[in-house]
Amino acid sequence: MRGIGDDASVVKALKLCVTSVDAVVEGVHFRLDGETSFADIGWRALAGALSDIAAMGGQTGEAYIALGIPSHVSEQQALELMLGAEDLAEQTGTSIAGGDVVSAPALFVSVTVVGWAERDQKLIGRDAARPGDLVGVTGTLGCRPDRPMPKLREARAIAPAGVHAMIDLSDGIATDALHLARASGVALKIDLDKLPTDERTQATARELGVPAWQAAATAGEDYELCVCVPPRRLERVNQACQRVGAPIAWVGRVIDGEPGVILRHQGQRQQLSGYEHRW
Amino acid sequence: MRGIGDDASVVKALKLCVTSVDAVVEGVHFRLDGETSFADIGWRALAGALSDIAAMGGQTGEAYIALGIPSHVSEQQALELMLGAEDLAEQTGTSIAGGDVVSAPALFVSVTVVGWAERDQKLIGRDAARPGDLVGVTGTLGCRPDRPMPKLREARAIAPAGVHAMIDLSDGIATDALHLARASGVALKIDLDKLPTDERTQATARELGVPAWQAAATAGEDYELCVCVPPRRLERVNQACQRVGAPIAWVGRVIDGEPGVILRHQGQRQQLSGYEHRW
Repeated sequence: MRGIGDDASVVKALKLCVTSVDAVVEGVHFRLDGETSFADIGWRALAGALSDIAAMGGQTGEAYIALGIPSHVSEQQALELMLGAEDLAEQTGTSIAGGDVVSAPALFVSVTVVGWAERDQKLIGRDAARPGDLVGVTGTLGCRPDRPMPKLREARAIAPAGVHAMIDLSDGIATDALHLARASGVALKIDLDKLPTDERTQATARELGVPAWQAAATAGEDYELCVCVPPRRLERVNQACQRVGAPIAWVGRVIDGEPGVILRHQGQRQQLSGYEHRW
Repeated sequence: MRGIGDDASVVKALKLCVTSVDAVVEGVHFRLDGETSFADIGWRALAGALSDIAAMGGQTGEAYIALGIPSHVSEQQALELMLGAEDLAEQTGTSIAGGDVVSAPALFVSVTVVGWAERDQKLIGRDAARPGDLVGVTGTLGCRPDRPMPKLREARAIAPAGVHAMIDLSDGIATDALHLARASGVALKIDLDKLPTDERTQATARELGVPAWQAAATAGEDYELCVCVPPRRLERVNQACQRVGAPIAWVGRVIDGEPGVILRHQGQRQQLSGYEHRW
């Protein structure tokens, strides 16, 4: 339709518009110390907003990026950042359709993703988990990859298989499951020994100086999905996961009670919250 | 549909999605010196993005606001900023449907407005001005109000009356007409003596230490509309303006030639560009 260069961009819409905003700021969410490349900053800023669209079961559409550029960031570095975002956009079928570039005292990237859905029934909130539901998580937790991949395809496969509630793990399941529990007015019992881990989780755990199960529960920015599913839909959800090649582990159960999360490790109750995860 | 509190917001869409992003930063676009209230900062940040939707002839829809809050801005001040934006949102039929709040070393406000249109034919770009078109501007220029009002209603009335090209005056007509001229591949001849001014323009002119016609051409953030209209549609456009109570002044003509803007004051050619307009 109309692209960058006019007053506003114009694209064809589907029936429902699913929108998310995610802003990251130098010194708060990341440092420019050379450890994180500008391309990775662009990738991760877009990934955060895309993961919220995934968590609803929406399909991606257009991304709009507002960039605040300080004098210590060169044009070339800003371009690298945009190329990193463009890389993820291509891999997820997202169009970067507009934005704004302004001067700023510190680098910031504010991403708005406008996603789409054909029917409201296909969208899954975080507010409809019910006592008796099983709690599942996709993939492997605590990996902290440089370029986390939002689970758009996986979510759209799993959502219509009978999921009651869904959230993406951006701050670690200890924190995100609490958001879901509060929104649904239920308690989630999670068995930390069942969280899916691998050697990358071990590496994160060593870095943080904690056991692997703890890294899996708290390291954040996994962008894996946490779903609540009634037992009668378990088989359909397992099959949907298999179809898209997404492993799913069943790690707990939704119960009646004070809204909150009950975390257990080897039978002992644990209190955990997410690490502040600067990149 | 679904509001703030879930992973993403969900709203019903019209056929076409018209989106604009506008970011403003403390120390670049405004100062926190007490002259501009936080409510006005919120209003003006939203106004900038809404004016871009107006300039296409789109109808407003949802606004998403990413807010970067430094330690020298209190929660109360941040709230005042959002109330200022909410004030304009209400007056224009816009819903503030989501956003993000992050820490930042300086205050920034990044606004994405998702607007809508039912048909592509109702949308007006800046790229279709043709030689022979008359150049019109709405309202009064150079007023610099604390709370500029985007011309959403006016634009939607004028656009279908036969406008070839339209742009909003955010940097002053000397600069914005150039954007339109370049996008359309034409030259715009503008008679500065015909620019609509009043006593508010005089006040701005005194502040800037320039004649009123120069303030009208360069003071920026008018958010008035500049339109290019074939002469046979002049009457219809005049009537549309009358219907919505928007005065329109005919200030120039589109001609063949090197893309650019030819500004004349009392027959003399002038070179002008916009003032840097911090709030």
